[in-house]
Amino acid sequence: MRGFKFNGYKEGKYGVSIIYSEVPALVSATFTKNRVKAHPVILCQELLKKKEKFRAIVVNSGNANCYTNGGMEDAKKMQEIVSKLLNIEKEDILVASTGVIGRKMPMDIIEDRIKKAYERLKRGNNLEETAKAIMTTDTFPKYVVKKVGDVNIVGIAKGAGMIHPNMATMLCFVLTDVKIEKDELDNLLKEMVEKTFNRISVDGDTSTNDSVFIMANGLSNINYKEIKEEFDNALFEVFDTLARMIVKDGEGASKFMEVIVKGAKSKEDAEKACKSVINSLLVKTAVFGGDPNWGRILAAVGYSGADFNPEEIDIILKSGEEEVYLVKDGNVLADEGSEELKKAEKLMKNKEITFIIDLKAGTFEDKAYGCDLTYEYVRINSEYTT
Amino acid sequence: MRGFKFNGYKEGKYGVSIIYSEVPALVSATFTKNRVKAHPVILCQELLKKKEKFRAIVVNSGNANCYTNGGMEDAKKMQEIVSKLLNIEKEDILVASTGVIGRKMPMDIIEDRIKKAYERLKRGNNLEETAKAIMTTDTFPKYVVKKVGDVNIVGIAKGAGMIHPNMATMLCFVLTDVKIEKDELDNLLKEMVEKTFNRISVDGDTSTNDSVFIMANGLSNINYKEIKEEFDNALFEVFDTLARMIVKDGEGASKFMEVIVKGAKSKEDAEKACKSVINSLLVKTAVFGGDPNWGRILAAVGYSGADFNPEEIDIILKSGEEEVYLVKDGNVLADEGSEELKKAEKLMKNKEITFIIDLKAGTFEDKAYGCDLTYEYVRINSEYTT
Repeated sequence: MRGFKFNGYKEGKYGVSIIYSEVPALVSATFTKNRVKAHPVILCQELLKKKEKFRAIVVNSGNANCYTNGGMEDAKKMQEIVSKLLNIEKEDILVASTGVIGRKMPMDIIEDRIKKAYERLKRGNNLEETAKAIMTTDTFPKYVVKKVGDVNIVGIAKGAGMIHPNMATMLCFVLTDVKIEKDELDNLLKEMVEKTFNRISVDGDTSTNDSVFIMANGLSNINYKEIKEEFDNALFEVFDTLARMIVKDGEGASKFMEVIVKGAKSKEDAEKACKSVINSLLVKTAVFGGDPNWGRILAAVGYSGADFNPEEIDIILKSGEEEVYLVKDGNVLADEGSEELKKAEKLMKNKEITFIIDLKAGTFEDKAYGCDLTYEYVRINSEYTT
Repeated sequence: MRGFKFNGYKEGKYGVSIIYSEVPALVSATFTKNRVKAHPVILCQELLKKKEKFRAIVVNSGNANCYTNGGMEDAKKMQEIVSKLLNIEKEDILVASTGVIGRKMPMDIIEDRIKKAYERLKRGNNLEETAKAIMTTDTFPKYVVKKVGDVNIVGIAKGAGMIHPNMATMLCFVLTDVKIEKDELDNLLKEMVEKTFNRISVDGDTSTNDSVFIMANGLSNINYKEIKEEFDNALFEVFDTLARMIVKDGEGASKFMEVIVKGAKSKEDAEKACKSVINSLLVKTAVFGGDPNWGRILAAVGYSGADFNPEEIDIILKSGEEEVYLVKDGNVLADEGSEELKKAEKLMKNKEITFIIDLKAGTFEDKAYGCDLTYEYVRINSEYTT
């Protein structure tokens, strides 16, 4: 990975990762749409209005630095500490935080973690440690590496609960050495987030800290325009892999669910129907129970607001290469005692399942990734701060 | 209760209740907004377009008669059986069903239950049996009786999961002997449902069978106009009591939660903020865990789309006569180690809690009733049909 350094350090509840570029790198970013924004989000939004290139990102876990007195000063303090260590300007450093809301940042501990992350950074790159240091309730570190000829892409993410379209509650950092223009990078980020992170849901809650950054330092000397198609595909793979990892690691999740809505009358209808099914507690608990309860899927599509005729639709359950029609042309095939129901019950035991819903009302399609709702989700979230 | 007879019979999964008026009674009704509607809902909507007065309602539990082949014939068959027993016209009988979706009605069993409910009806009225026979996952029968001078009001309801504003997944039957005009009755029903059942949420899912009926037979000979204020208040009490009962009996619910949003810029904003908090899985699990996690409330208001300044708002926790400010004028009072947090933790142990959120952005107010998300909710809904 030309010109990038990254490493992290975590101890107890608190961790810090540092991402550093040896040369100023173009940065595009998107942030939470929540009206309540964490201080680092506000700080980054201000910085990104002023300039296009940055040298580093410092990220802490354990405290969201959101809705706290003096939170902006704490975010700037993080810039300052890193600025001294790396000997770069404060304004060249972006900041992100994840963890509990409304608790004052323990700056002594954060400073200690920053210094220890920096010590590791000096010794070399470690993708796994970088990903690990920013975990909160995540159960595994999330990162992915891709090569397009001589161009490198690295992606690092965290996320576990509060994962929802628009956008997932998460942090994501994608680094590449491709040579690219700022507007190209902005467009790419927008497109990728729309296709991946805005399509995932764990619990329908949207957090105060969601941030996705992409950093391009150009050091490969290979121009994006020359490898556009391969690069776009590889970048999509990076975003899509991280998005799927986040859902699979959804708090307490035991199963991965994909919902594809076809034949919608409009783009909005396809999206509404997808989101309604992926967020339905009754669908999520049925998936947990291994119950091919298509009635709940039908009801969720029914109250989504999407236009369709219930007498015409298909609902298909798919897992791996196998698939079975639960409902076909509005007729229930997975009825009590049917072969379809038996097959469906077998497929529902798999860890990854897809529901394909054909509304037969038009030509629009959308999809969403989600997970089941489990005892473990309730446990994690009822015991979180107490 | 002048001129009304009601009774019910349940055995195993299947029950039937019959409500009968000795004279034709005015009926107003509202139904689910789900695009997928159960056959009895479609049948009732057709009947209510044609005429204003009815003699009876027959209700079964155990099967929703939704998305089934021949479901309309089954609904009409229920009319026919009751028509013969009561010796009234088929067209004078309304039908409602609740239970599993997509399973053919077991008409032999339903016929048996109708006959047994009729035998009981002949022997006299029994409000508790009427309410019991239509229960599904409900853990207690829901009914309420009110008197306004010489006028009677009786309300019966069922509901447990799939409870959501617009409207709650539930069945409700309100009977009164007041003398009233059809348009007055229509307006009253609309107003009451808006204030009560459209303000409750268990899991955010909207069912295919939701129906609320009000039946007025006029036999008290007391004119609604003469007792308008007292009657409206009593009727509101009936609807509100049933709505609260439904939420308290939400699947697996261990705690009752009320959310009041004040100071909203618009009616829509107040409603959006209420619904966002009452439906947030993170708020619901925090309530289950007894955790005064105001950060999750703040985040839910933040992503609701309502307009407000996070630096100005109040978040108050109330239970019984006691209350405590978690956030005041945008400042966190329930901080680690604070008296406020200790008091909040104590109040969160109560079975009934209220969150009051003052957005300080205008003069509009709204409220919603909901419940916590528990292990028991996951168990009930993951094991429902399997």
